[in-house]
Amino acid sequence: MTPDILSAPTRRPVYRRADLLRLLEPGSIAVVGASARAGSFGERTARNLAGFAGRLHLINPRYETLGDRPCFPSIAALPEVPDMVVAATPMGACEAVVQDCVAAGVGALVMYAAGFAETGKPDRIALQHRLVAMAREGGVRLVGPNCLGLTDYMRGAEISFTAIPRPAAPPTRPAIGIVSQSGNLGFALAQSVEAGVQVSRVLTCGNSGDVDVADLVAALAEDPGCSAIALLFEGMAEPGRLIEAAEIAWRQDKPVVVHKLGTGEQGAQAAMSHTGSLAGADAVYRAAFERAGMVHSESFEGLLELASFLSKAGTPRAPGVAVVSTSGGAAIMAADRAEAREVALPQPGPEARAVLEARIPEFGSARNPCDVTAQVLTDPNSLRDCMDALFADPAYGVVLVPNGYAYDVATPRFRVMGELAAKHDKAACVVWTTQWLEGPGAREAEGEERVALFRSMDRCMAAIAAWHARDAKRRAGAAVVSRAAPPEARAAAASLLDAAQGAVLTEREAKSVLAAYGIPVVAETLATDAEAAVTAAEAAGYPVVLKVESPALPHKTEAGVIRLNLGSAEAVREAFAAVMANARRHAPDAPINGVLVQPMVPQGIEIVVGARRDPLFGPTVLVGLGGILVELLRDSTIALAPVGHAEARAMLGRLKGAALLSGFRNMPAVDLDALAGIVQRVSELAADHADRIAEIDVNPVICAGPRLVAVDALIGLSAGGHPPHA
Amino acid sequence: MTPDILSAPTRRPVYRRADLLRLLEPGSIAVVGASARAGSFGERTARNLAGFAGRLHLINPRYETLGDRPCFPSIAALPEVPDMVVAATPMGACEAVVQDCVAAGVGALVMYAAGFAETGKPDRIALQHRLVAMAREGGVRLVGPNCLGLTDYMRGAEISFTAIPRPAAPPTRPAIGIVSQSGNLGFALAQSVEAGVQVSRVLTCGNSGDVDVADLVAALAEDPGCSAIALLFEGMAEPGRLIEAAEIAWRQDKPVVVHKLGTGEQGAQAAMSHTGSLAGADAVYRAAFERAGMVHSESFEGLLELASFLSKAGTPRAPGVAVVSTSGGAAIMAADRAEAREVALPQPGPEARAVLEARIPEFGSARNPCDVTAQVLTDPNSLRDCMDALFADPAYGVVLVPNGYAYDVATPRFRVMGELAAKHDKAACVVWTTQWLEGPGAREAEGEERVALFRSMDRCMAAIAAWHARDAKRRAGAAVVSRAAPPEARAAAASLLDAAQGAVLTEREAKSVLAAYGIPVVAETLATDAEAAVTAAEAAGYPVVLKVESPALPHKTEAGVIRLNLGSAEAVREAFAAVMANARRHAPDAPINGVLVQPMVPQGIEIVVGARRDPLFGPTVLVGLGGILVELLRDSTIALAPVGHAEARAMLGRLKGAALLSGFRNMPAVDLDALAGIVQRVSELAADHADRIAEIDVNPVICAGPRLVAVDALIGLSAGGHPPHA
Repeated sequence: MTPDILSAPTRRPVYRRADLLRLLEPGSIAVVGASARAGSFGERTARNLAGFAGRLHLINPRYETLGDRPCFPSIAALPEVPDMVVAATPMGACEAVVQDCVAAGVGALVMYAAGFAETGKPDRIALQHRLVAMAREGGVRLVGPNCLGLTDYMRGAEISFTAIPRPAAPPTRPAIGIVSQSGNLGFALAQSVEAGVQVSRVLTCGNSGDVDVADLVAALAEDPGCSAIALLFEGMAEPGRLIEAAEIAWRQDKPVVVHKLGTGEQGAQAAMSHTGSLAGADAVYRAAFERAGMVHSESFEGLLELASFLSKAGTPRAPGVAVVSTSGGAAIMAADRAEAREVALPQPGPEARAVLEARIPEFGSARNPCDVTAQVLTDPNSLRDCMDALFADPAYGVVLVPNGYAYDVATPRFRVMGELAAKHDKAACVVWTTQWLEGPGAREAEGEERVALFRSMDRCMAAIAAWHARDAKRRAGAAVVSRAAPPEARAAAASLLDAAQGAVLTEREAKSVLAAYGIPVVAETLATDAEAAVTAAEAAGYPVVLKVESPALPHKTEAGVIRLNLGSAEAVREAFAAVMANARRHAPDAPINGVLVQPMVPQGIEIVVGARRDPLFGPTVLVGLGGILVELLRDSTIALAPVGHAEARAMLGRLKGAALLSGFRNMPAVDLDALAGIVQRVSELAADHADRIAEIDVNPVICAGPRLVAVDALIGLSAGGHPPHA
Repeated sequence: MTPDILSAPTRRPVYRRADLLRLLEPGSIAVVGASARAGSFGERTARNLAGFAGRLHLINPRYETLGDRPCFPSIAALPEVPDMVVAATPMGACEAVVQDCVAAGVGALVMYAAGFAETGKPDRIALQHRLVAMAREGGVRLVGPNCLGLTDYMRGAEISFTAIPRPAAPPTRPAIGIVSQSGNLGFALAQSVEAGVQVSRVLTCGNSGDVDVADLVAALAEDPGCSAIALLFEGMAEPGRLIEAAEIAWRQDKPVVVHKLGTGEQGAQAAMSHTGSLAGADAVYRAAFERAGMVHSESFEGLLELASFLSKAGTPRAPGVAVVSTSGGAAIMAADRAEAREVALPQPGPEARAVLEARIPEFGSARNPCDVTAQVLTDPNSLRDCMDALFADPAYGVVLVPNGYAYDVATPRFRVMGELAAKHDKAACVVWTTQWLEGPGAREAEGEERVALFRSMDRCMAAIAAWHARDAKRRAGAAVVSRAAPPEARAAAASLLDAAQGAVLTEREAKSVLAAYGIPVVAETLATDAEAAVTAAEAAGYPVVLKVESPALPHKTEAGVIRLNLGSAEAVREAFAAVMANARRHAPDAPINGVLVQPMVPQGIEIVVGARRDPLFGPTVLVGLGGILVELLRDSTIALAPVGHAEARAMLGRLKGAALLSGFRNMPAVDLDALAGIVQRVSELAADHADRIAEIDVNPVICAGPRLVAVDALIGLSAGGHPPHA
């Protein structure tokens, strides 16, 4: 909760783990506002920290002892400088705490008090800024204010004034780190430890006065105790920092799974008041997440499952999934959801089949989904042989077992799965179909190092698909992205933009900019009278198109200032007069440069390519199928600009109507490389001149097989040539 | 699991509750194959029935006593005729059991043994048929074979050889009835009782040799102990019976929630081997469910939540939802999902706001979502006042509370919600966001009569939307649907179909059939030479279209036998020669009747209207936006034929590209009533002649504002005029 947009305008790089070590691994913690009063923030904090392995100090001038501990009057009075201070003090006392921390050289300060910037009141906002500036300048990492707390389950550092969910035992190996912009929902996620989910840390940051979720993601990226990051995110003023953090995680091969709140208009408005920042267009956020290698969780309820799976599954060894199920219904469910999520369920090879047929009674089935029968499923030795055969089969990267009944008899099979997954370095999934959601066996499955538990077949298949997609991206590697546009394009375009008549370029001006980037545009001539139009038409070849050129008439179709398919000189003369008359009638005061004469481009598939400068993420490029498909159905896809050739090709594949590009009725298949090249070049134009260009619309690009040509273009400059502010 | 398609061909009406009373409420149960051997089916069955309130009899000639009970040598030897017999016997002994049941006059027979029709072996299929026929003729209701069992939690009749999930206490009021075609998944659903879900019965039917899920739905429809039906369904040979059962439930206002397995191609293939019947096209099933008033659950994991909600929520009093949340993040989540599911979150009215502002601390919020603050949330009295005000507000039909922390402190608020929901006769939802899925409070919430628990905000909002849709349907009532086509249409079309030249009608023949139903078709004349074509063109008015008419040339565009936009006699003559030449080249042996001359219909929005006779559900009608939108994007919607005017209008609204119908670029808005009328009439044609017509394609209907005209039509007759068999 922060009006982040009002805080320090300079874009600060993310804090790294090294910058936050005294926050993440404090050797000593001091609680300011410690208290004897049961239920007070100070008392609860100390109680929660009772198991802290480091040194705990209590501070309150009113007490000399609290329980069996000494109590100190101030930070300065402590026998050592604490790594972390927890301010369990009311709002009014916080400034003094910050000063004392700075003076003492404290590393991190967690501040609970509410009543700061989240109130929206100018004086409280100013107060928060003051404290943040003070802490920053003094080298104290401030978390909060209005922070619910954070936990480190590995070291038993549980820092909060509320009830903290506690696992039965600390994690024994690296585990999920939860980062949540919402304190409440962060603790809702943390309660998963009660069900046996393996969690290393839960980090929340209240108002994000200084330390925010981007910093926390970056820090966990380099935290050896964290196997994967689960991020619950709403919005921030400079989300580029989150992308920066995600890229650090990518370099560490640390999966980051994100679920975003504030995706609808109403939700975005709620997020605005919640975080004080623009939630941003959801599509652009998704494009940014994709660019940064983050994995997106469609649902809140599936966030931890997905993170847990990615932390346990390792690298995909093969695309196929083997389903082991004694339930015909569950087998159908698996087949349905695999198909919907494009996950393959290939048949076992001869070696595996031989083992299965030897072990499984006749009324079972050695196919995939494989019905080993109840007697094999409940006999660990027989089950082990069957599963070992499936894990060994080179077609399978995952063995998936639906679990339809929670009872102790089922539990040993999760251990068998875990052992075999480790032996073969493959993944194992349990899809818990029983509605005794936390019945016997669930905790044991969660505790297995190599077994991922899902409570939805659809989410399991979606996770497997996401795993493959992430792996493909990693194998593609840090591809050197070569530019498509010629090296002189940037400067050439700059000159053309300088010479533009207005904030919206004329069609000719816009096309010349595109042409500088190597984008094929239809040839055209400007004619200032009918006879010149006829001459131009004869040079271009009939049939031709006439369009009025005026900076004031961008929407030509509605104004009646465009005439198509003119097949003769007579038609051209008549059209010239008609469009000029319409232009003068439609916009009497508009400056009219003349009429563009273009050859009529034969029919083809219409594509829209565009760019917009997003207030949060900068230049974005968009491609969509033209006409009805883009305008009504919104079938388009977006990416952060610039894109490389491969990404541009991938964008085309994501269109719902992508099949259109493969040819339709009498239209030949579109040259996808050429089209991707146009998308790439438009993205480069947008990125090169992000400070000047607010939007680009190339609509349509007409594609007939290998022949692609842009027949219209619009480029809009930002006000004063400066980027528009949010 | 049944090759139902091979069983008795006559379409038997569903059994009603009265027909199955001795199955559903047996006063006495006899277990054949009772045993002392621990873990045997007979021993486990008797053990499960230890709590049965009725009379339990054990049968096995090998024992005189079993434990402290007598054991009888046969059914005939019992002191009474048992209402139900459970056959815990191997497959080979089952026929004798059926004979004995028939002889004794037993009401119901539950048969566990596997090895029957589910094996796919002809002799086992025949055996099953023999037993089923014997039982049917003898008045014994056979459930199974290969049946896992069934439970009646209200009466403590738990009939199974497996471990049965048991609630802590029997339900004290009507509760969900679970019907599952999959035994395993049925018991997975049954385990919900361990988590406190209120369930009255769980019914599975194994191979569905006789009693099947349609019968069970019909029986539960009239079961006073059942408040709503949750159906897990794969497929059946005569799903019309399921629709029949659903209609019985509709008349009782008993919600039926269905989740279907076998929606994908692979899943459908798996279902084929699983149930031996066609799973059927998923879209047609959905249309049938919609027609029958069933509510569809998108996911398996949400099936019971949705049924529970519908059983508890009563009637919607208002469309709005009030969200009470101390978590900003949860409030955003609620806003997002409400928007996505089209659920309204209106602001509270002045009365409610006055109460809220009086009770809530300043830093809370009296808006919607409403932040009552933690202190109010945890104080039942303050919370009661706030919630009472929201429930009283006429804008709200539901109060929704996200629950982010499972702990005992939270539990009293669910009781407050339940009391107030009852007081105001409105609905209350708890969205359990904490990941301690069955933590403290969940069971209590489930146990509340008026509180529905969800573990997903999205599923909660989807349920509310479905509730409103169902209610709207109920309020629309049994609308008398008037026919659109003239009364003489059926006979007129019959004559025209009789006179058709082939299995696929010519365009002219097809159009005359459509015209008989009052569907506007373009006028046309058949010309057998060029001069006749010119005469016809002059009569029709230029420009015209020429199309070769031949029963052997349905795909005119590809064959080059259609020419558009001919503006003069010369053009007509030239086109006539060209299309005839192309026809002869393309299909040299085809009979050619001549060339159709039609006026060229000006541009408009293209709509496709069609009909198909589905092998399972009979005639269906389809409408879609033409061209690219139908062919590539599959933007179409389907319903069972015939449809009335209102349903046809609703179909138009369901199209993804529905906005196109409201006008686009230069095209005026389409007259939706006229278009719906065409859809209705095509559906009536398809239904009237379902025994003869296999398919109808009216593509396109060109719509320009109020002017709609079909410019092409195809009618295909079923082989020999008889309906095609599956």
